Amino acid sequence: MDEPGDLKAEENAEGEDAEANVAPTVPGITEPGGDLDALWTCLAAFLVFFMQAGFALVEAGFTRAKNACNIIMKNLMDFAIGSLGFWLIGFGLMFGTTNGLFGTDQFMFDGTSPEALAVKPNPTFNWAFLIFQTVFCATAATIVSGAMAERTKFSAYLVYSVLITCIVYPIFGSWAWGSLYTQAGWLDAKWGFLDYAGSTVVHSIGGWCALAGAITIGPRIGKYTADGKVKPIPGHNITLGALGVFILWLGWFGFNAGSTTAITDGAPFAYICITTNLAAASGVVGALITSWIMFGKPDTSFTLNGALAGLVSITAGCDCLSPGWAAIAGLIGGVIVVLSCVMLDKLKIDDPVGAVSVHGVCGAWGTLAVGLFMKETGLVNSGDPSQLIAQLVGIVTAFVWAFALSMIIFNVIKFTMGLRVTAEEEMQGLDIHEHGMYAYPAHLVTEGTSQAGHVS
Amino acid sequence: MDEPGDLKAEENAEGEDAEANVAPTVPGITEPGGDLDALWTCLAAFLVFFMQAGFALVEAGFTRAKNACNIIMKNLMDFAIGSLGFWLIGFGLMFGTTNGLFGTDQFMFDGTSPEALAVKPNPTFNWAFLIFQTVFCATAATIVSGAMAERTKFSAYLVYSVLITCIVYPIFGSWAWGSLYTQAGWLDAKWGFLDYAGSTVVHSIGGWCALAGAITIGPRIGKYTADGKVKPIPGHNITLGALGVFILWLGWFGFNAGSTTAITDGAPFAYICITTNLAAASGVVGALITSWIMFGKPDTSFTLNGALAGLVSITAGCDCLSPGWAAIAGLIGGVIVVLSCVMLDKLKIDDPVGAVSVHGVCGAWGTLAVGLFMKETGLVNSGDPSQLIAQLVGIVTAFVWAFALSMIIFNVIKFTMGLRVTAEEEMQGLDIHEHGMYAYPAHLVTEGTSQAGHVS
Amino acid sequence: MDEPGDLKAEENAEGEDAEANVAPTVPGITEPGGDLDALWTCLAAFLVFFMQAGFALVEAGFTRAKNACNIIMKNLMDFAIGSLGFWLIGFGLMFGTTNGLFGTDQFMFDGTSPEALAVKPNPTFNWAFLIFQTVFCATAATIVSGAMAERTKFSAYLVYSVLITCIVYPIFGSWAWGSLYTQAGWLDAKWGFLDYAGSTVVHSIGGWCALAGAITIGPRIGKYTADGKVKPIPGHNITLGALGVFILWLGWFGFNAGSTTAITDGAPFAYICITTNLAAASGVVGALITSWIMFGKPDTSFTLNGALAGLVSITAGCDCLSPGWAAIAGLIGGVIVVLSCVMLDKLKIDDPVGAVSVHGVCGAWGTLAVGLFMKETGLVNSGDPSQLIAQLVGIVTAFVWAFALSMIIFNVIKFTMGLRVTAEEEMQGLDIHEHGMYAYPAHLVTEGTSQAGHVS
Repeated sequence: MDEPGDLKAEENAEGEDAEANVAPTVPGITEPGGDLDALWTCLAAFLVFFMQAGFALVEAGFTRAKNACNIIMKNLMDFAIGSLGFWLIGFGLMFGTTNGLFGTDQFMFDGTSPEALAVKPNPTFNWAFLIFQTVFCATAATIVSGAMAERTKFSAYLVYSVLITCIVYPIFGSWAWGSLYTQAGWLDAKWGFLDYAGSTVVHSIGGWCALAGAITIGPRIGKYTADGKVKPIPGHNITLGALGVFILWLGWFGFNAGSTTAITDGAPFAYICITTNLAAASGVVGALITSWIMFGKPDTSFTLNGALAGLVSITAGCDCLSPGWAAIAGLIGGVIVVLSCVMLDKLKIDDPVGAVSVHGVCGAWGTLAVGLFMKETGLVNSGDPSQLIAQLVGIVTAFVWAFALSMIIFNVIKFTMGLRVTAEEEMQGLDIHEHGMYAYPAHLVTEGTSQAGHVS
Repeated sequence: MDEPGDLKAEENAEGEDAEANVAPTVPGITEPGGDLDALWTCLAAFLVFFMQAGFALVEAGFTRAKNACNIIMKNLMDFAIGSLGFWLIGFGLMFGTTNGLFGTDQFMFDGTSPEALAVKPNPTFNWAFLIFQTVFCATAATIVSGAMAERTKFSAYLVYSVLITCIVYPIFGSWAWGSLYTQAGWLDAKWGFLDYAGSTVVHSIGGWCALAGAITIGPRIGKYTADGKVKPIPGHNITLGALGVFILWLGWFGFNAGSTTAITDGAPFAYICITTNLAAASGVVGALITSWIMFGKPDTSFTLNGALAGLVSITAGCDCLSPGWAAIAGLIGGVIVVLSCVMLDKLKIDDPVGAVSVHGVCGAWGTLAVGLFMKETGLVNSGDPSQLIAQLVGIVTAFVWAFALSMIIFNVIKFTMGLRVTAEEEMQGLDIHEHGMYAYPAHLVTEGTSQAGHVS
Repeated sequence: MDEPGDLKAEENAEGEDAEANVAPTVPGITEPGGDLDALWTCLAAFLVFFMQAGFALVEAGFTRAKNACNIIMKNLMDFAIGSLGFWLIGFGLMFGTTNGLFGTDQFMFDGTSPEALAVKPNPTFNWAFLIFQTVFCATAATIVSGAMAERTKFSAYLVYSVLITCIVYPIFGSWAWGSLYTQAGWLDAKWGFLDYAGSTVVHSIGGWCALAGAITIGPRIGKYTADGKVKPIPGHNITLGALGVFILWLGWFGFNAGSTTAITDGAPFAYICITTNLAAASGVVGALITSWIMFGKPDTSFTLNGALAGLVSITAGCDCLSPGWAAIAGLIGGVIVVLSCVMLDKLKIDDPVGAVSVHGVCGAWGTLAVGLFMKETGLVNSGDPSQLIAQLVGIVTAFVWAFALSMIIFNVIKFTMGLRVTAEEEMQGLDIHEHGMYAYPAHLVTEGTSQAGHVS
C-alpha cells in the first residue's frame, strides 16, 4: 500500500538521510496528501472552474443584450489573467514563506521543486492544490465584473483583473489561509479566525472590491431618475441567468466540499455537501418569501439570487454548522440579499446583478454565522464570545483591505486611462463599441419570422 | 490500511463491548461503505443535482417564452423544497425503520446519530447517501412541473411540491428500495422486484403524478380545437432545450452508475456507464426513425426526447442487461416515446414537454425490460416468468399509488386554493402575472436591431 | 488490500493454472488497472461527453438561428451513431489485435470476454476504457459538423458520421494509440510519435476531415461576394457560444488529464490540469491581442476560439511540457487560430465556426510543439531532432489519411445521394426544410413585447 505518489522520491526509505523535511516519503495513494486527495482536489477544481460559466451567464442574463459580449469577454479575461497571474505571482504571495505580510517564494509555482516538496512531499498533490487555488482566485476576480457591468471600459477592466488576482486577493488570502499550505497567517493563527471555504476570503473580498468599483464608476445612465426614483433595468435573458445559478450551485459543491482538499483522514466532504445544499435551498425560500412580502409577487431574480446568498452564507461554516443551523444561516442570507439590494439602490449604488449584496454582505453574514451558530453544533462549544470577536476582526479586516485598496486602484485608473465608456457608447452598447459585434444580431434571431406560418 | 473513516469510532477495537451493531468499526477508505464509496456517491449526486438545470432548460425551451420565468421558479422551488423536506421527513419515511408501510425514524437525518451509525458505521458514507437520495427525490418532483407547464398556479405548485417530496415519493421508495439502507421493502423483499436506479421508483412515480396533474388541470387554451384538431404549440428555444437534454444525459451517468453508491467490492459502475450510454444513443436513433416515418421529417424535439426515453428505459436494468440488450431496450423506448406522445394528444391530455411519455411510460417499459431481457445476459437466467411478474407488480403498484394519490391531491388543491391560473393570465403569460417580470423583455433582446448595419 | 476488482477471477490464486495471461489476478482497488483507475477514467469520460454540449452550443451560437435545430441534430446524431458504431466496430479496429493496419477482434466489445481480460484483467477497467474511448471518438466526429454547418444535407451527414466513427478515426487511432490497450501501432512503436491526449489523433483528424468537407461542399451563399470580398455571417447567439467554450474548457480537463486513465502509479493527472489550464488561458490572451492588432478591437469570437486553440495546442504535450512552455504553446496557438481563419477566408474555404483552424491547424501545431519544447522540461531531453521528425511523420500521416479519405467519401456522397441542400433550402434555413420546425418561432420569443410596459 505504498505505491509512490509520483515518479521520483521514496528513495529515502533507506534511513541515513531521512533526517528532516528534505525529501520525505511520498504518501501512498490513500494516505493524507496522497494521490486520492489530489484526485478529489482536482475534481473539485473542475467544478469551481465551471462556476466561471455560471458567473458569465448570471451577469449576462441579468443585464441587457447590447452588453452581453462585453460581459463574456470580461469573465473570460479575468479567468485567463487570473490563471496566468496566480501561477506567476499570486500563489507565492498567498502560500509562499511569509514575511508576516505576504509570501516571498514559490513564484512560478513548481510542484516538483525542493521548496514545494519540503511543504508537501507529493508533487501530484502540489499541482492539484495549485489548480484548486487558481480557480478560487479567479472566482474572487469575476465577482467584480457583475457590479461594474454595462459601463466599464474593457481595457480598464483588464488592468484591474491583473491587480486583484495578483495582489488584492492573494495577500489577504495569506493572512487567513496561509496555514492551508505552509504557515498560518495572522488572522487564522493569532485570532483563530474561521472561514472554511471563503465566505470572507473569496466572496467578501470580491464583493467589497465590487462595491468600490460600483461607487467609483457611478450608476448606469437612467438607473436613478432626477426625481429620486429607481428605474429597474431588467435583464435580457432570465433563463440563461437561471442556468447560471444552477451551474454556480453545482460548482459550490466543489467550492465548499473541495476545500477539504482531502478524501482521506476523516475529511468531512460529504457532510459539507449536506450543509451547503440545505443552506442554498433555504436561501431560495428566504428570498422567495421576502420578495413576495415586499413586492407582492415572488420575484424570479431575487429568488435566484437567494440561492447564491444561501451558498455564500454557508461557505465559511460549511464544516462546523449543524444541518439545521446551516439551513437557518442560508434562510437569513436569503432575506438579507433582498434587503441589501434594496438598500444599495436607496444609496444610489448601482450593482446590476446584486454582486455586492450576494458576495460582500452575505459573505460577511456567513462569516459571522460561524461565531453565532457554531456552538450549537456540539462539535465546538465556543460559549464565550471570543470566536465571534475573531470573526468580526476577519470581516472588518477584509472590508478595510479590499474596499480601501480597490478604491485607490479604481480611482487611479479613472484619472489615468479612464474607467468608464462614453455616454454614447453606453447607450448604444459596449458590444458594438468595444468589440465590434453584437451578441444577437437581430435579423438573425428573428429571421424565421416570416416563415412562421409554415410550422405544421 | 484502516485509517478511520471519520473522527470518532474504531475505539471498539479493544474487544469486550464489540458485541453487536452498537459501534461497529468504521470501514477503511477503500473498504465497502468507506470514504471512497462516499466520494463516488457525492460525485454522482453532483451530476444528478445538475439534472435540475437540465429539466429546467428542457421545460423552458420546449414551452413559450412568456412562461419561462415561471417554469424556472417551479424547478428551483421543487428542488429547494425537496432538499429541505427530504432531510426533515422524506428520508425517514423512505429509509427509517419500517412499520411495513413506511419508515418511522431517522427524521431530520443525522449521519452521526447512533441510529444511523447502527445501520452504516461510517458517518461520511451516511451523509453521502443522504445527498444522493435527496437529489433523486427532487428529480421525481421536477418531472411533474413539465406536464403542468404554462397554466398551473405557482402557489398551488408549491403545495404539491411539499407533498410529493415528503410523502408520495418516499413512501413508495420505502417499498422498493428500503433494502438499500436498512431493511427490504415489501416490493423488493417479497416479490424480488428489480429497479436498479429507478425507472419505476423515480421516473414512473414522477410520470404518473404528472399524468394526474395534466388530467386534473386540463389542456392549455388553444391546444385542442373545437373540431378535434391538435394544434402544436412549439417551444420558444430548442437550443436551450437541447442543452437541457445533454445536461440530463450527463447527469444520468451519475443517476445510474452512481446508484451503486460504491466503488469498492466489484461494483459495476463502469459497466453501467456503457449500458446507459448505448441505450440513450439507440433511443435517439429510435425516435429519429419513428418521427421520420410518421411525420415525414426527422423531428428535433422528438429526437431529443428519444435520448431521454432511452435513458429512462435503461434505468431499471442498467446493471443487468447486456450492452446489446441495453441498446435494444433504449431503441424501443425511443419508438415508444413518439407513439405515446401522439396517443396522449389523441386523448386530449396536454403534456407540453412529453413528461408523462418519457418518464411514466418509458419508465414502465424499462422496468418491464428487466423481466424480458435480463435472462439474455447470462448474469441471471430467470427462465420462468416469475421475474416478469415481479416487475409487473411493481409497475402496477407504482401507477396505482402515484396516480391515485396525486389525483386526490390535485383535486383537493383544485377545489380549495385553485390549481389553474385565469384564462387572461394564461394568455398573457404566467411570468408577468405570477412574478411581475419577463424572461426576455423584448426591447432588450432586439435593442441592437437599429444598429445592425454597423456590424462590419 | 486485495479486494477483488470484480465479481469473478482471482480463483487462480491456487497455483497450477496460473501459467500465463489466461486469467490473471484482478488488481486491487488502488493498484494500476484497478477500480480507482476505472473511476477516474469514467469521471473523465463524463467530462468529455459533456463536450458534446459544448460543441453543439459553439456551432449553433456562432451560426444563424434558422439552422440551430439542424446543428443540434447533427451533434446529437454523431454522438449517438458514434456510441453505437464505436462499440460495434470502431473499438475493435482501434484496439483489437492488429494485422499491422487495423485491429481484427474485440468487436461488439465485451469487457468480461476472455480476450479483453487477457489484455487487462479487470472488467471494470475495461468498461471504463471503452466509455472513455467512445467519447473521444465522438469528439473527432463532431468537429466536422461545424465546418460544414448551414448547408449540408442531414441524411448525407448521417452517412458520413457512420464512416468517420467506424473507419476513419479508429484506424488512424490504431496506428498512434494501439499501445494504450494492446500492442503499439506503427506510429508510436516504430517512430516514437508522441500525442498524449490527441492533438493529432482526435483534433487534427477531425479538423482535416472538416477541411475536406468544407472544400467539397463549397461556401455558404453570400459568404464570398463576386468581387472577391469576404462577407462575415455573424452568429446568432454569442452568449450560448461562450457557454459552449466554457463547457469545452471544462471537458478538456477530462480529455487531457483523463488520458492518464490512471490515478495510481504516479499518473500525472494533476500536473496535466495545470498545463492544460495555462495553455487555454494564454490561448485566450494570444487571440485577444492578435485580433485587437489585426481588427482594431478585441473580437469576442476570436478570443473565445483562442481558448479552444490553446487547449488543442496543449493536448499532445500536456504531460511533458513544462507549465511555462505549455503557456507559450497555448499563446502561439491563440495567434495561429486567428491567422488561420483569415487565411482560409482568403482561400474562400468557408468554415463557419473555425473548426479547421482550431482543431486541424492548432492540432498540428500542438503536436509539433512536443518536438520543439519538450526538451526544455528537463523530463526528457530530446536534444537531437529525432522527436521533431517523429512528430512531423505523425502530423503528415494524419493529414494524408484523414483529408484524402474524407475527400473521397464526401465526393462519393456528393455524386450519389447529394451532399448539399438546395439554394432555396439554404436561404430559408435548414431547420424548417430538414426538420419542419424552428429553433425560435419568432412570435414566441417576442410575445411579451406588447405587455412590456407592465414591467414594474
